[in-house]
Amino acid sequence: MKAIGFAAPGGPDVLHLEDVAVPKPGPDDVLIKVAYSGVNRPDCIQRAGHYPAPPGASPILGLEVAGQVVAVGSNVPREMLGSVVAALTPGGGYAQYCTAPWRHCLAVPDGMDVKHAAALPETLFTVWHNVFERGLARDGETLLVHGGTSGIGTMAIMLAKAFDLNVITTCGDKAKCEAARALGADLAINYREEDFVEAVKAHTGGKGVDIVLDMVSGDYVARNLQCLAEDGRHVTIAVLGGAKAELFMPLVMMKRLTLTGSTLRPRSDAFKAALADEIAQNAWSLFTDGELSPVMDQSFPLAEAAAAHARMESSAHIGKIMLEVAP
Amino acid sequence: MKAIGFAAPGGPDVLHLEDVAVPKPGPDDVLIKVAYSGVNRPDCIQRAGHYPAPPGASPILGLEVAGQVVAVGSNVPREMLGSVVAALTPGGGYAQYCTAPWRHCLAVPDGMDVKHAAALPETLFTVWHNVFERGLARDGETLLVHGGTSGIGTMAIMLAKAFDLNVITTCGDKAKCEAARALGADLAINYREEDFVEAVKAHTGGKGVDIVLDMVSGDYVARNLQCLAEDGRHVTIAVLGGAKAELFMPLVMMKRLTLTGSTLRPRSDAFKAALADEIAQNAWSLFTDGELSPVMDQSFPLAEAAAAHARMESSAHIGKIMLEVAP
Repeated sequence: MKAIGFAAPGGPDVLHLEDVAVPKPGPDDVLIKVAYSGVNRPDCIQRAGHYPAPPGASPILGLEVAGQVVAVGSNVPREMLGSVVAALTPGGGYAQYCTAPWRHCLAVPDGMDVKHAAALPETLFTVWHNVFERGLARDGETLLVHGGTSGIGTMAIMLAKAFDLNVITTCGDKAKCEAARALGADLAINYREEDFVEAVKAHTGGKGVDIVLDMVSGDYVARNLQCLAEDGRHVTIAVLGGAKAELFMPLVMMKRLTLTGSTLRPRSDAFKAALADEIAQNAWSLFTDGELSPVMDQSFPLAEAAAAHARMESSAHIGKIMLEVAP
Repeated sequence: MKAIGFAAPGGPDVLHLEDVAVPKPGPDDVLIKVAYSGVNRPDCIQRAGHYPAPPGASPILGLEVAGQVVAVGSNVPREMLGSVVAALTPGGGYAQYCTAPWRHCLAVPDGMDVKHAAALPETLFTVWHNVFERGLARDGETLLVHGGTSGIGTMAIMLAKAFDLNVITTCGDKAKCEAARALGADLAINYREEDFVEAVKAHTGGKGVDIVLDMVSGDYVARNLQCLAEDGRHVTIAVLGGAKAELFMPLVMMKRLTLTGSTLRPRSDAFKAALADEIAQNAWSLFTDGELSPVMDQSFPLAEAAAAHARMESSAHIGKIMLEVAP
């Protein structure tokens, strides 16, 4: 089959199409004939050599796909054969065929856009776990999410609004702020023109926000903590702005803040299966019914994965960047 | 009545006995004829001018007392009159009479040492909330607490062992390590002779601890995080070693750590009442039945509060320093 490989870590141009063997599904896996594969920031970090695949995972990039199930392992319900699924994969998505544990798949019903389905798993699993489970978001609370037009940002705005949170976001230009507001953000702050701490305080009447979904880290952390209300939660899912953060601990104590964070990929198969169940029961229908749709940026043919990575690293995109494999 | 006052912030010697009016209980308060008053680290910080009393609180130091109830407010059950109680006070404990909300009192039964009773509220409320509620400690887990022979440290060791946790503590000399082990600590590390991170890792087979009760903060935070196991919790209750901490955020994400903290004194009366109820139901009988006793350091007459503060600031003490008011 065709798949995207890279001989050594480097910039987007190290990515190239190559011929490799079709992977064999394990007893709990399905084999998916990939229609579309989503591009995610961790793929770029892995390609650059800073985020090695976990032990046992495919060396091929790609954490989410959608397509038809063409083979199943011995423990998989037979009725999955032939069905169309969206899957959180352990890697291997930038390819014509990809395996995934069957419990990490979500059913794609007739009439749902398969490209949309492929754009959902990584951000949906990440946002659901970190905002609702880890961040304990409740309706009526206020969420601050940076990068409001990124894949994670757009998902966070949509999901939070669907569950009746107030949403404040930051973006890097006026067009992105408008896109974030069109998605439902109650306030979109252009961080190049305004101090987001002051803007958050003004918007919340000095109270602050209940949750920050942080993908910047670095010197944003101290500023995020200034944005948090009493009993606020700060959940870190990426460190795009720097790995080290300085905390003023009396602030943590006086406001009784909580800082936590997580990574999705290294979690156990059992954890991901439980998370998939919860999403299937509580959020997936928002997308299959068409109430919510992922924000789509550009799609590139599989062979042009390098261009897709270059676009993500330019940060010019709004929403999801996709690879077309067999649309 | 006689009470300890200070004209201006400063060292222990600013404290002196003075004559002030007996406080009047509000509708939800009891007036306590103080037998003993506990000395706590926040008293020293308040005396030094770094921890002002919350609005409405007594300007007199003292966060815990025990003694007889000699007057009650209009909303207080009449049967409390004449009873002996231990109370978490909003301040005002270094005096012959002190008020406290009746719901912040714990009954002292016949046969219980009143000096012991007075030594309990501040550390018991603080440790209960931060280790069990905020830190979510469960039996079988491992707790790391620094300052194992401080008032907080001794309470944390005792309570954690009573609820079947494993306890690791750090102390500054051999005698303190022995005292901590005698209280039940499974491991007491002399931090002047050993790197506590290495010692914790060796003791836990590399796994780390589930909870750190942190009263040091500063550069201990990064070391504490190295001690934590996956899904570990770090709860800060004081910053004796410095207010600023540097975090390596990828560690927070990869181990899914949680950092939080709290202060007790500024919390609402309703919160403290709920906490007192929980302690009355779950922990107070350990002390009234004599299964646990607070570790007692020295007692000083009320008039010698300055000497009591000097002893606390010397860090030579093991356990609670008390003021005798009307023993």
